[in-house]
Order: sequence, then structure tokens, then C-alpha cells
Amino acid sequence: MVVTGYYNEARSGRGLYAHPGEECGIFGAVGHEEASFLNYYGLHALQHRGQESCGICSSYGGRFHHRRGMGLVKEVFTQEDLLSLPGIAAIGHVRYSTSGESHLVNAQPLIFRYRGGELAIATNGTLTNAPQLRAELEAEGSIFQTTSDTEVLAHLVARSRAETLEEDVFAALNRLDGAFAFLILTNEKLIAARDRHGFRPFSMGTMAPRGKLGVATVFASETCAFDAVGATFDREVEPGEMLVLDDQGNRESLQFAEPARRGICTMEYVYFARPDSDIDGINLHSARKRLGRRLAREALVEADVVTGVPDSSISAAIGYAEESRLPYEMGLIKNRYTGRTFIQPSQGLREQGVKMKLSAVRGVVEGKRVVMVDDSIVRGTTSLRIVRLLREAGAREVHVRISSPPFKNPCYFGIDTPSREELIASRLSVEEMRQAIGADSLHFLSARGMVEAIGRPECGSPDRGHCLGCFTNEYPADTYEAAGGQPRGGEEEER
Amino acid sequence: MVVTGYYNEARSGRGLYAHPGEECGIFGAVGHEEASFLNYYGLHALQHRGQESCGICSSYGGRFHHRRGMGLVKEVFTQEDLLSLPGIAAIGHVRYSTSGESHLVNAQPLIFRYRGGELAIATNGTLTNAPQLRAELEAEGSIFQTTSDTEVLAHLVARSRAETLEEDVFAALNRLDGAFAFLILTNEKLIAARDRHGFRPFSMGTMAPRGKLGVATVFASETCAFDAVGATFDREVEPGEMLVLDDQGNRESLQFAEPARRGICTMEYVYFARPDSDIDGINLHSARKRLGRRLAREALVEADVVTGVPDSSISAAIGYAEESRLPYEMGLIKNRYTGRTFIQPSQGLREQGVKMKLSAVRGVVEGKRVVMVDDSIVRGTTSLRIVRLLREAGAREVHVRISSPPFKNPCYFGIDTPSREELIASRLSVEEMRQAIGADSLHFLSARGMVEAIGRPECGSPDRGHCLGCFTNEYPADTYEAAGGQPRGGEEEER
Amino acid sequence: MVVTGYYNEARSGRGLYAHPGEECGIFGAVGHEEASFLNYYGLHALQHRGQESCGICSSYGGRFHHRRGMGLVKEVFTQEDLLSLPGIAAIGHVRYSTSGESHLVNAQPLIFRYRGGELAIATNGTLTNAPQLRAELEAEGSIFQTTSDTEVLAHLVARSRAETLEEDVFAALNRLDGAFAFLILTNEKLIAARDRHGFRPFSMGTMAPRGKLGVATVFASETCAFDAVGATFDREVEPGEMLVLDDQGNRESLQFAEPARRGICTMEYVYFARPDSDIDGINLHSARKRLGRRLAREALVEADVVTGVPDSSISAAIGYAEESRLPYEMGLIKNRYTGRTFIQPSQGLREQGVKMKLSAVRGVVEGKRVVMVDDSIVRGTTSLRIVRLLREAGAREVHVRISSPPFKNPCYFGIDTPSREELIASRLSVEEMRQAIGADSLHFLSARGMVEAIGRPECGSPDRGHCLGCFTNEYPADTYEAAGGQPRGGEEEER
Amino acid sequence: MVVTGYYNEARSGRGLYAHPGEECGIFGAVGHEEASFLNYYGLHALQHRGQESCGICSSYGGRFHHRRGMGLVKEVFTQEDLLSLPGIAAIGHVRYSTSGESHLVNAQPLIFRYRGGELAIATNGTLTNAPQLRAELEAEGSIFQTTSDTEVLAHLVARSRAETLEEDVFAALNRLDGAFAFLILTNEKLIAARDRHGFRPFSMGTMAPRGKLGVATVFASETCAFDAVGATFDREVEPGEMLVLDDQGNRESLQFAEPARRGICTMEYVYFARPDSDIDGINLHSARKRLGRRLAREALVEADVVTGVPDSSISAAIGYAEESRLPYEMGLIKNRYTGRTFIQPSQGLREQGVKMKLSAVRGVVEGKRVVMVDDSIVRGTTSLRIVRLLREAGAREVHVRISSPPFKNPCYFGIDTPSREELIASRLSVEEMRQAIGADSLHFLSARGMVEAIGRPECGSPDRGHCLGCFTNEYPADTYEAAGGQPRGGEEEER
Repeated sequence: MVVTGYYNEARSGRGLYAHPGEECGIFGAVGHEEASFLNYYGLHALQHRGQESCGICSSYGGRFHHRRGMGLVKEVFTQEDLLSLPGIAAIGHVRYSTSGESHLVNAQPLIFRYRGGELAIATNGTLTNAPQLRAELEAEGSIFQTTSDTEVLAHLVARSRAETLEEDVFAALNRLDGAFAFLILTNEKLIAARDRHGFRPFSMGTMAPRGKLGVATVFASETCAFDAVGATFDREVEPGEMLVLDDQGNRESLQFAEPARRGICTMEYVYFARPDSDIDGINLHSARKRLGRRLAREALVEADVVTGVPDSSISAAIGYAEESRLPYEMGLIKNRYTGRTFIQPSQGLREQGVKMKLSAVRGVVEGKRVVMVDDSIVRGTTSLRIVRLLREAGAREVHVRISSPPFKNPCYFGIDTPSREELIASRLSVEEMRQAIGADSLHFLSARGMVEAIGRPECGSPDRGHCLGCFTNEYPADTYEAAGGQPRGGEEEER
Repeated sequence: MVVTGYYNEARSGRGLYAHPGEECGIFGAVGHEEASFLNYYGLHALQHRGQESCGICSSYGGRFHHRRGMGLVKEVFTQEDLLSLPGIAAIGHVRYSTSGESHLVNAQPLIFRYRGGELAIATNGTLTNAPQLRAELEAEGSIFQTTSDTEVLAHLVARSRAETLEEDVFAALNRLDGAFAFLILTNEKLIAARDRHGFRPFSMGTMAPRGKLGVATVFASETCAFDAVGATFDREVEPGEMLVLDDQGNRESLQFAEPARRGICTMEYVYFARPDSDIDGINLHSARKRLGRRLAREALVEADVVTGVPDSSISAAIGYAEESRLPYEMGLIKNRYTGRTFIQPSQGLREQGVKMKLSAVRGVVEGKRVVMVDDSIVRGTTSLRIVRLLREAGAREVHVRISSPPFKNPCYFGIDTPSREELIASRLSVEEMRQAIGADSLHFLSARGMVEAIGRPECGSPDRGHCLGCFTNEYPADTYEAAGGQPRGGEEEER
Repeated sequence: MVVTGYYNEARSGRGLYAHPGEECGIFGAVGHEEASFLNYYGLHALQHRGQESCGICSSYGGRFHHRRGMGLVKEVFTQEDLLSLPGIAAIGHVRYSTSGESHLVNAQPLIFRYRGGELAIATNGTLTNAPQLRAELEAEGSIFQTTSDTEVLAHLVARSRAETLEEDVFAALNRLDGAFAFLILTNEKLIAARDRHGFRPFSMGTMAPRGKLGVATVFASETCAFDAVGATFDREVEPGEMLVLDDQGNRESLQFAEPARRGICTMEYVYFARPDSDIDGINLHSARKRLGRRLAREALVEADVVTGVPDSSISAAIGYAEESRLPYEMGLIKNRYTGRTFIQPSQGLREQGVKMKLSAVRGVVEGKRVVMVDDSIVRGTTSLRIVRLLREAGAREVHVRISSPPFKNPCYFGIDTPSREELIASRLSVEEMRQAIGADSLHFLSARGMVEAIGRPECGSPDRGHCLGCFTNEYPADTYEAAGGQPRGGEEEER
Repeated sequence: MVVTGYYNEARSGRGLYAHPGEECGIFGAVGHEEASFLNYYGLHALQHRGQESCGICSSYGGRFHHRRGMGLVKEVFTQEDLLSLPGIAAIGHVRYSTSGESHLVNAQPLIFRYRGGELAIATNGTLTNAPQLRAELEAEGSIFQTTSDTEVLAHLVARSRAETLEEDVFAALNRLDGAFAFLILTNEKLIAARDRHGFRPFSMGTMAPRGKLGVATVFASETCAFDAVGATFDREVEPGEMLVLDDQGNRESLQFAEPARRGICTMEYVYFARPDSDIDGINLHSARKRLGRRLAREALVEADVVTGVPDSSISAAIGYAEESRLPYEMGLIKNRYTGRTFIQPSQGLREQGVKMKLSAVRGVVEGKRVVMVDDSIVRGTTSLRIVRLLREAGAREVHVRISSPPFKNPCYFGIDTPSREELIASRLSVEEMRQAIGADSLHFLSARGMVEAIGRPECGSPDRGHCLGCFTNEYPADTYEAAGGQPRGGEEEER
């Protein structure tokens, strides 16, 4: 039982504040007598959104019961642990570390006590004005113990002067810019809130009554968690909405901010969310197959087989294969047992071809012209490696097809991305990229093709309510990118 | 660092001896200065063949260096551990427990000292005459500390009276019946041996010279391990062959037994081996796609989508979809993070629909007629559960298609199977099975269709050198099934 | 790597604030290139002051490096961990849990960032006005994440409006009442401070120059830590003193509060500190032997052997034996391997006499009249158990001699004690206690005898600068005991 | 859950066979429904005899239940583990590694299956003819998986041709030379046996009836384990005796070998056994005090204080102090929290005086003439270090007094000792030793003084039934010391 870590914020500059994305998953349940067990199964279904740490906090008997730890949900919690988290309301969190360093101190939910009572908070997203808010709060005498945006919210709540805890939260939420989904547990209530643009997916579901309790309500970053616990999707938490639920089943909906330009993250559709989740009613696997079909129409190539990069590109590859009438083959295979703790091979062994995670299937690709479908190219190094794997396994030609446009700009709204300099598409043309990764041909799906294939309803804007910032550098909200953290208006931005 | 377990052999009857299958993977390397690292990566590639325990033993400086542990390869070995396993020859093992109980004492390689020197042994397979040999050895005063067949071999070697260790091994191998692939390390040699029927896959590969050393030789249960370490497939270890390699690169091939009726395990093709492995030159993914195509030809059905049960049936499902011109969809999804240690949901949560491992994708199957392709039906409980999942997710019809014939008989040659009574196909007709699992239709691939689709060369026998015992009750070798362990000739058996 | 715990503060009443003592040990080093290693060995020497959790924080390269964990120093830190805590200044902490519940979140040093920079804080002691300060800080909008007094200090520092970090700390210290020794690390300085009464021992030592560095300075709760690291005792940190050291070897002494009535904790002399430590120049083993000698003079008894309760009462027992000319015998023995995680015996086994920790030595006590010397009686249950052990082992008579007066009142200044109701001496007379514990006779050392035997210099007051509150209910400072946390003047208190 | 280790037997020479002592503790219980819990508490009391590994095996339902692990009893076993070891008979073992390498494979009890049934064996001691027996067994075709003598016994049992398991054990025991105490569990019986010289202590106790069961019988290496479980000492297992107990309470005593010259290990009295144990009716603490008293009479010195080296020499030091009328002081103190896993200080820190385990108490020894009592001098390095510690803490003179004669010869009968070359007393005279360790004076207790002080009954031989081999090179049995393992008659040996 050990915490290790570097408290590595620089004193000035962007330092601490340059956390360009915390990919996470959150879950909450109220009105169910096994609320912490629901969290366990729900968080397990969201495990792909974060594997570094996890935690659950329940409320029972006027106080919180919580447990957090480094590692996977199944590793952190024992049955005994869950039994020690009683109560009919609980929230949980899985966290992905952007820095590569482990910070148990940042594991969520975080617990705070203030004038108005106690709060447990779980967050998914990134507050773009966190640096400004931190500076302001520090100037007023606040202290910070973590690098998490969650702590910013807690301080804002504590400094509000409203009558009730709900009003304090309401006032605090109003101060926040950026992308976020919050679950806040008090000793009596569960509060859910989503940013005004609706960047991150966040849904509400219900579970049939059981025992003496009425209908239970659950919240999750993705709907696959509802399937995992046997809940039924009810609706999305709306942009700018704050929902307050108590344990008697009462539910109140408030609008803490006017809904702004809609900006659901496109990368959730392209690769991040689980294929069995729906976002705004659109199933992800089906959307990805449509991306693959559209890609085949935009960039067909004469070839023998289609293969996808597991796991995230399988759906798109199958779509490409079906549309192109080429056979889909398992040309690349991923070792299911690879994990964080793997021993890296020596330089010599790497040169001899030791592989750990992904291998090309000689029996499938040898002598073949291969279409390799992937969801995106970020730094280009992975694509280069996979093209090489395929060639070493005997592929005659390798045609790379990407089911999204070139990824040129960092994300400020919750997806972990490298700096712009490291994004290969921001430096190179498509032809230069093709050469860099060693492909025989390379094509990206068009932005328009992508948006149409995903299939969100038309809404008067060509982006159909997507945030396309990573492709177009046009963000639906301020990014606060410039040094000093000045807001940079996304909408007025020229490409 | 703890061993726990039940020493659960009964005193008489089948007791200890009724180990109806030890699915395992073995790997060995000689002539490579990072032999234990090669084992690490090679065993990792074979992890699907056994997740309970693993071990590596190297030879250096006239003695053995070994490490074994419970769990996955990546969990058991640290870099420091591998560095403490020096030498240019090493063998390793991954083990799957058939009993559900953990026995570190059974983890391999096992180390023995006898009159002629020291032996480290790693095994994949099942000795059908182990009970007879154990009884005979005990009568002569042998003691047994494990339930492993490996110990039987060691005793036979020790009781041989030959001149050299190799001759002792040769004589011992000759006494063994059943399915096996052995890797035996001595302080000077590496010995590989395969049973006379060639039940279990076992291949030899080579690695290009490096540093002062010449060509290195590697052995593995499956060829995917060669890809993982950058080795090139050389040839299969032949049935009845014993290969002796020394660290100067000399290789000697002996025939310890006449090759008998060939009987490569069909289930390795159908579901057990990794799709990127080849057996006798046949790629597994491709073979499974052909099984799916053949199945579509034998049992087409009008439907909207085809889906496979992950992970093993995806290839067959894609084959079925291509042949039937139906779209392949990801109608079922498996949680990648599920593992051994998962907390089971309470009865109440199970009734509310809590799922841990597999879920059906509503967005894909709702309102659809679904063809669900699976590789086999064993007890029928899994199929029943999956059909239900699909119906609960809104599937209008569920048509189950199995890419192998009905599984009616236990395996005596190394695949873990339940007793005949538990095999649903041994009790029910196909129509009864259909009703039992709640499918709208159910079809199995014919034995002939299976054998032809796999595509091994014709060899004058309709089984093309496969063991089809689990389907036909006709085994290529004695099964010693009867009480008292009397041999039962497989070939004379009537279906 | 897991945090577990209950966030168990009640919303009102004494709740969170009733932490009647955090026994801890702190260590700090500045000016030594292996500062974190010094912390490791120093904290190890202080391990008896707290076994629940520990932590070290070093400063290097303008930022903090820290590691905390549950368990003993030797369990939490590996060599690699210490190497990852570079720098020539570091502070550390060992913590004893008063609640019996594990709170990694409370493990120290705690790290804070505020307007003026970063602080790492390690504390030993109890702030008696913490509830008032917390309430005041919460009213101003502060949030609390732990139950530690350390967080109170951090908030006070953050809310100070001084020019420099040192001045902020100075101002904050001035607000604190109670018993405390603080070590505060910043990125440039090490600050040590002790409460105005000097309740808890806190010393400064030096280490000879080494390499390019000059004389290093170390701080520790007890001088035994200086011996452990090869440092030389320099002087006590004075009551009300704040020492500021930088890494160039400069040392500044400030007086943040006027020294008040001196009140060194008597129980540190009686049982808590290690026998090889000195407090105010008095060696603890020698002081305890003098307590035993005085006890023999005050309460001699005709007996055959003297025995002490290991480990803390051995010195006093030897003193008693020497003074009384009775042989000292090892009549009670403690199992060295007992620890936190021990499995409790079933009721049946307890009745059969299963013992885990302490046993009486039949060969020594059988048929003998035994004088059993102990340092104190708190609840009386332990004394009862030991008297029984001795009788069961055949002791003919058991005479209990206690080397301190009856323990009647809880400690508000850093020693973990039960409530007054649980203190047997607050409810029963000495004769009633004798009957309750089943002794043939029972005598306590007089308060005057104790103070004289310890031997601190006369200082015009009969308590010679001790806090005798637990014996006399007269405390040298406010205890804030009453409901609502109103201060209760200790000095004016009548017995 | 990991086994690591080097299988480090050389092929020839003494290699594997040179295990010059396995200090261990064994415990067994039969006829008690919580037999495995009794083992837990009993082994815990014997923990000082071995901390490397431990194990318990119980018999229930016709089969064994066992668990072994590396580490302390309290670390290896959870309550759940003990509950999974049911039955009314169980044996257990704690093991001390002589090699410094960890071998879980050598952890006991070991389990064997042979012609006659199953055996679990736990051993304390060393078979002096193990090399001969191993060679003989290997020649007959036996294989060895461990380096433990236990396996030799198992092979001998298996190769016996008697009618019953008991007779097989009887015949096997008869073949063994050396020092041993065995506990052997079968599915129906518990067998206890002790070598014909009675080298190692081994006692039998009883527990009062409970529930439906009659009187339970327990066995232990030391009687302190009886106190720990509430059992009453019954009698020693006699030299050459084999006791067979069944679960109905029947007890049979057989003599498998004629009792030979008695040779109880003197070092058990001097330092190895726990002070609260009795051996042959003599309490160890009392015996050690008498050794100290005798030492004072033999080697008085003018001094100020007496101190003992903790923990083993405290009793002798107190005896010395009482006899010499000098005050006993705690001049040396041992850190209770030091353990196996401690990080060693760097060379620089060692030179600066970092100490981990033992420190001298300046407040006690400064300016004093100190008598330092220790139980033995083996290599001399520890004595040198302690004398230095005392001088650095200010001792004016250091007079070393050893409560046993010079330790000149290795032990072949179960105590871990270095080779003769490393024994300082085999190379240097007492005066040379005094200089080597830097003492002002050095005296050893005479052999006669030691034997008389211990106080075993006179038995017609001056050694009173002790083995004095390590002092006199005269052993009561063959030592098989010479290369090639030829027996060397101890009694005829000239010094």
C-alpha cells in the first residue's frame, strides 16, 4: 500500500496547468441497495477509459465510505471492500494518466469537507480555465494538494456564499469552462452535471424497482456500462444541465449554463468509446463500419485483403471490406495478455524482431496486397511499425486507409494528445506521411465524409454538433491555449 | 510467495490419474545468449495455452537457474529475474489448470537430479498410460511429489540403465503412450520429443546468427511464438522424433518410436491455437474462415447480420458472412479487462442483468435476424446464455451455427473437457439441443466438411491425419479409458 | 497500491476534531547528499513512535519528490525508491493511527501548493485549537481533504498575507495552540518549529562535513535517530522556536511565540521514548531504572523474584530488583514476531489458553512470590491478563508495582489515550484496582517520587517542567476539552 | 506467488550434500478439531528457529490439505488459509535457510505418494549420512527434486518392503545417522521420531479434552510452543523412539534404534532455544543466568556496569551482574523493527556511522568501565563491531565475557555454522582474539563450568549427556566429515 509520485508542477509558466487531457470514466448510482457493486460492474465496463487508478465512494449513515487504488477495477476491489462501501448512493471513477506517472493522490473520487458539508467528486474532462481559476483561488488563500481539476471545483463550491450546497455547486459550475462531466455525491444527494457544449458523452439510465426501493438511477460516461449492470438508457445529460437526485427518487433538473455551440468529441466516435456504446443514439460499432464503408467509397484500391488494426479499427475495416467486396482477414493480431508491466526487449532482441503486442499473420498476408485500415495517425510511429510488420510477414503491397481526417491539432477538451509538434499531420503533407510510414498508398477520410458517416442529425451546421478541433483547429469553445492562459476564441479561429 | 493447494489424489480408482487434459504451452531456445528473454517473449505469445502458472529454467555454469510462479508471464517475471537466468539454453512452460485449483508444486519446468545428472522438463500433453506407469514405478519404490506426467518421465529416465543421459531419455520416451511434446534441458543439451501420433502441435525454428554465436534453435507449441521472437519456422518436430541439440549448434535426430497413425488434434484448428499460428503449414485464421465458409454452404439461413462469439469464433463468423453475403457485425463484445479474480455478482444483481464479460450490442442486433457463429458447444450453458443476451438486446431471431461437429466424447489427449455426461451433444439430439439453448435454428458443420475445410493434405484416410475422437469416439491411439486403466484400442472402435 | 478508509467525521459535535492524540515521529535532514537515506535510517530508529504509515519528501531541482505508504519504513521503501528521492534536504514521518483505521490520505509528509510556493509538512503532536481553526477556515471558504492538523497549518500559511513564505509560516505558527513539532520543507528551506510549552521532544543534531558539503543538520523526535545516522546531538529545538535552514548551511532562529509554562510530556520518560534516547539531557533507560529504584523504596515487598513487562518496563524492573536486592528474572517473554496482521484465536482456543504475544515463564515463576513491574495501568485489562498469566504459570503471589502514578485523565497533547470513562484509575481506588486485576498487592509510584527520579533540574515549580495532566488533571496549557471546543485553562484548574 | 531459486548442487564433490545444518522448528497436533490453528500458534512460538519459510499440512477426508510459503507464519497464513486446512491432525514447519538463498521447493512439510500411501514429513536436524544414502538411492534409480533430507527419508520409506506404512517408516528411520526430529503425517496416523542420540530437543504435550474429542497430543521442537497453545508438557520424545498416534487417541511407542550416547546440543542451552522453553526439565532463562553467575565467578573484573548483547545474552548478563554485584544496564539496544528486507547503507553512510540494528546507549556507557556479556564468538566480526559501538559511545573500558567456551569446530548436527577456517577460535588464542576484537579483557566460560551451570543430572560422563563437539571436537556420533563422506568416529577423535 504505497503512494509514489513526483509533485511535478513547475512554479510558473504552464507547468502544473498543462494537463492536456484526462481521459476518464465515471459512474454513479442512486436508489439501489447494492450501489457500490453497481459501480464495480459499471466501472469495469468503462475500464477502457482509464486503467491507472480507480475508486468508489458511497454514502451511508451520514458519512462517506470510500476506497481508491492504483490499477484495474478488478485488482483494486475485493468483495470485502465492496461490502464495506454500504448505502444506496455511490459514485466511481476510472482514471487514465496522461503523464505516465502514477499519482494515487489524484485518484478519484476526491473527498472534501467545507462549510456546507462534505462532497465526493468524480470528473471526466478538462477545465480549460483551470489555470486562471487556480491562480485566482491561490490569490485568495486556497491551497492545492493535487493536480486535479476536481479540486478546483471543490474550492469554488467552498467559496460560494449560497444558501444550500446545491446552490453552491450551481454557482461553482457556472464558473467552469471546458469539457466536463461531473458526478458529485453529498450525504443526501447525487448531482450530475455536463459542460455547456456537451464535449464528453454522459448518459442517464434507470433500473427497475427492486425490494423496497423504487426505480434506481444510474449515470455513466458510456452506455455500455448500463448494459453491464442491466440498466436501461433513459437520456443524455444535457449540455449545461445539472441534475440533483435524492435517495427518495426525486429528480430535479437545473440549467447552470445556457447550452452553447454543441461540440461532442468526434474521436469518441472514431476510436475512444466502446463499440457497444451509443452516443446520442448512434451505436459506435455501426458508426465505425459506416466510416469504413465511406472510406472505401472515397479511397478504393485494388487489393487482395483488408485488415484492421486491433482493436479499435476492426469495425471500420469490416465496413471497408464489405463496401469494397474484398475479403476481410485477420492480418494483424494483438496479444491479449500484454499489459503495463511488460519487460521491454533489449536493443539486440528488438533488432532480431522480438514483438510483444502486435504481430502480422504471415499465413494471411504473405504475397498479398493488403489494405490496412486504422482509425487515426498521431505521431506516425505506430503506423510505420505496423506497415513494417506487414511487409516482414510478406505483404506485397500495403495500402493504409485512415477512417478520419489528418490529426493536426492537440485536444484541449479531454483527450490525451501530444503537442502539435509531435503530430505528424501538422508537419507533413499526406504524401510525405505516406513516405514516412512506408506505405504504398495512404488516404484519409474527408471531414465531411466522416461527419456524414457518423450520421448525427443535421443541425444547420456542417459539423453536425461535433467538435472537429483536432482536425480543423476550429474548436467550439475557448481553448486558453496561448502562454499565460489567455482565452482563445475557437469559433472565430481561421484554419 | 506462497504455495497453496489440495493434494487431491484419491488413494485408488482413477483419482490422481484422471487428469483428462493439461493444456499447456512450451518453449525452448538453445544457442542464443538471451535465451531466458526469448523464453519470456515466446511464452508470452503462448499465454493463451495456459494462464495459471509459468516457469523458465536456464542452464549456465554447470547448473540450473530457474524461476516459477503462479500467474501470467508478465506477472511472474521481472527484468531482474530474467537477468538471473543466464545461459544460452533455456526452456519454459505456461500451464492451464484443469482442476481449478492452484498447484505451484505442479508448475513447470520441473527439476530432477538422478544418477546420470540433472534434468529440467517441460511438457504439453497427457500420458494415457501414466496410471500404469505410476503404479509400476511405485511398486518398484518410487515416490511422487506432484500430479504431473513430467515426474513419470523423470522416474523412467532414472530407472533406465543406459550409458548416457540421452539414451536414458530415449528409453524412457519409448515407454510413454498418449499425447505429448517434451522439452528436456540438461547441463549440456536440449532435447525435444513428440509422441508417435503427433497429437499436439510442436515446431522447430531458427534465428539468424548473432554475436559470436551461430544459428540459434527454438522450439514452441505454436509458431506464433516464432513470430514473437523473430525466429523463422523450420519444420515440425516429427511424430516419434527425439531431437538432441548441444550448445555448439550440433543437432541429432533420433526416432524413439515408429510414427503411428497420425492424429493431430482437430480442436487446435477449430479453436485452441492462435489464429496467427500455422499447424502443418496451415494458417489457423484462414482455416477457420474456411470452416465458416463451408458452414455457410452447409447451413445457410435467411438473416440480417452475422456475428461471432469473441474471440475464437470471429474468423469463422467472417467466413460465414463473406460466403453468405450477409454483413458481419460486432453483435457481441467481450470486456478485455475481465480476469480470474473477478467478483461474482449477487443473485439479485444477476437477475437484474449484471454482466461481466460478454455483452450483446443492442445497436447492432435490435430487431435483426442474427446468425451467431460459434466454434463448439460443450455443456450448452454458454450458448444458452449468449442466445439470451442477443434476445434481450432485441434480436428478432437467433440462428446458431457451429463450425465443428457435435462434441460428444471427452478428450484423452490433452484438451481439458468435462466428462461425457456433461457434454450436451452426448445426451441430446441436435433438435433437442436447439430447444435447450433457445435458438431459432441450430446447425453443426459436418465432420467431412470440417476436415476438407481445414485442408490438410489427403493421406489415404478420410480424417486426413486428424484425431476426431471428440466427435466420433474413434481415437488414433489407446485411451485407457476403462476402469482399472485398461487400454482401449481407439482404432477398432465403432461409432 | 490501494487506499482504503472511512471518511468518518461527524458533521457536528466533536466528530472529526476529537483526535485525542497522534503519536508520531518526524525526522529531517538538510545539507547531506543522501538526505533521503538519512531519513530512512532515522525514521527506522523512530519506528516505535508509529507503525501505520510513513513517508519521505525530498526537494531537488526546484520540485518535490515524495513517497508515502502504509506499513513499516522497511516495508514501504526500496533502494530504488530512495534513489528516486534525490536532493540534500528531506523530511520524513512515521505515523501511528489512533483510530485503528488506515488512512493513506493522512500519511505524511503532506504536500501543498499555495500562492507563495510549495510546502511539505510533517507533524508530531496535537493542535488543541484545531476545531476552532478549522471552523474559522471553513467559514472563510477553505476545504479539507484530510483529518490531519497539518492541513490546518497549511491553510493558515496560505491565508497569511506576509511577504515571504517564512513570514507566512511564522504568522501561522503563532495561531496554533497545543503540542507540536513541525518540519516544513520548501524548495529552498527547511523549517523546524516546536510549540511554546515544549510538550513533545524535538532535537537538532549535526553531522560532520562530507564531500563538498559542509556540516549537515538533522532534526528528530528522539535522539536515538541521531545515533542511528551517526549524527551528534546539538541541542533541543526550544519551545516557541522556529528554525530556518537553507541548503548553504545558514541557520536562523526566530521566536514565533513566547515560551510558556514548560510542559514536557512525562509519559515520554515513563514509557513512550526509546531507552537509548535522551530528553533534555536525561537518558531514558537510566531514568526508568531510577523510577524502579524509587518505586522499590516507596513500595518494597517481601518476594522471591522481580520481573518486568516487556519491553517498556524492563529498565524499571531492573532498578526495582537492584534496589530491593531481589533477583531480576525474565518471568514474562514477548514473541518478537507478533505483528498487526496476526490471526486472532477462536473463543475455544482462547479458553484453552492460546497466547500470541506474551507468555509467562513457568520455569522462572512457578512457586515464587513475584514482583511484576509495569510502567502504567490504563484500562486495567492488560494488567489483569498478565497477573493471570503469572498465576497460571504457578506464581504463588503476584505483587504489581507501577512506575508512575495512577493514570486518571486523557491526554490532549499527543499521546493516544482512551476516554476518561475507560481509564480504570479514574473510576476505582487503588484497592479496587488491585482487586480488579487480581493482584496480591498493588502500588503506584508517587507523582513527587516520579518527578524526582526522572531528575529534570529544579525550576521553581514542583513539576520541574513536566506536563502531569494525565495524573493530576492539571495541564500546562488550554485543553479545549468542553463541548463546543471552548478553551479550558489548564493552569487555573483545581484537582 | 512465486518460487525463485538456484538449483545449485554441484555435480560431484560435496556439492549438494554439504548442508551443514538446517535450523528448523516443527510442530504437530492430533486429536484436536482446530489442529491447523494449533499449528499456527505453535509455529509462531517457534518462529525464532526459522524465518525463511513455513508450512502446515493437515489430513482430512482421506487426503492432505497443505499450504507452504516464504516468510513468517503470520505473513504466510490467513484465517481463510487455516480454515482450508481442516481435520484433527496436522503438522507444521518453520525453516531457516543456511544458504541465504530462498527455496520454496525446500519449504516443508513435503508431501510424497508411494506404494503404501501418502506421507507428509516435517524435519528438524541434519542426517550425517545423507550423501551416502542419496548416492545409494540414486544408484537404485531414485530421483531428487529438493536438497532436503526429508526426501531421503521418503525414498527410504518407499523402498522398504514391509507390510505397513508404519513398518516402512520404522525400517527407514533405522538407516539414518545424525541429528533429527521427524513428524510424519499419513491419512490415518501421526508419527514422531527422534534420533538415537537425542541431539535436537523434541517434546510431547497434551491438551485437555474438548467437545467430543478426548485428550489431544501435541509435539514441538520446544516447550514454549506448548505454553503458546495452552498444552501441558508430558515428556520428551526419547532418543531412538518412534511414537505412532492415531486419531482415536491410541499411542504406540516403538524403539527404532538403541539409544546411543546421549548428546543434547549445548548451543540450544547457550543461545538457540527460547528463554521460556525447558529442555529436559531445565528452564533456559534460568540456565543462562546460572551461566552468567558462573562466568562472574570464573572471570570477575572491576567495572561499573554490566550489559548484555540483546536478545540472547540478556539472561547471562543479568546473572553476571547479580553475582558480581555490579549494576545491570541496557548499554546496547536492538531495533525491534529490523528485518530481512532492510536496505544496506552506502559505504559513505557506514563510515558516517549509520546503524540499523544495534546501538550503544551513550547515556549508560559514557565514561564507564563496561562488562559486555555475550553467549559466543563465532567469526569475531560481531564482537569487534559491538566493542567499537561501546567505545564510540564513550565506554572507558570494555571487558568481554562469553558464557560458553571458545567455539572451535563446525556443527554437523543441525546448527548452522561457518567452516572451521572461519571460526576465529580455531585460529587464534584467547589473547589474540582479545586483540582482534579490541577488548580490554576477554574471558570464556570453561566447558566444565558451562556443563555444571546448565545443571543436567550427572550421568557418569563429564559432559552430562551434552554434545560438546563445537567446543571440544569430540562428537557423540559419526560426523562423516572427510571428503567422500566417510564416517569419522567422534568419540575416538583426538583434539
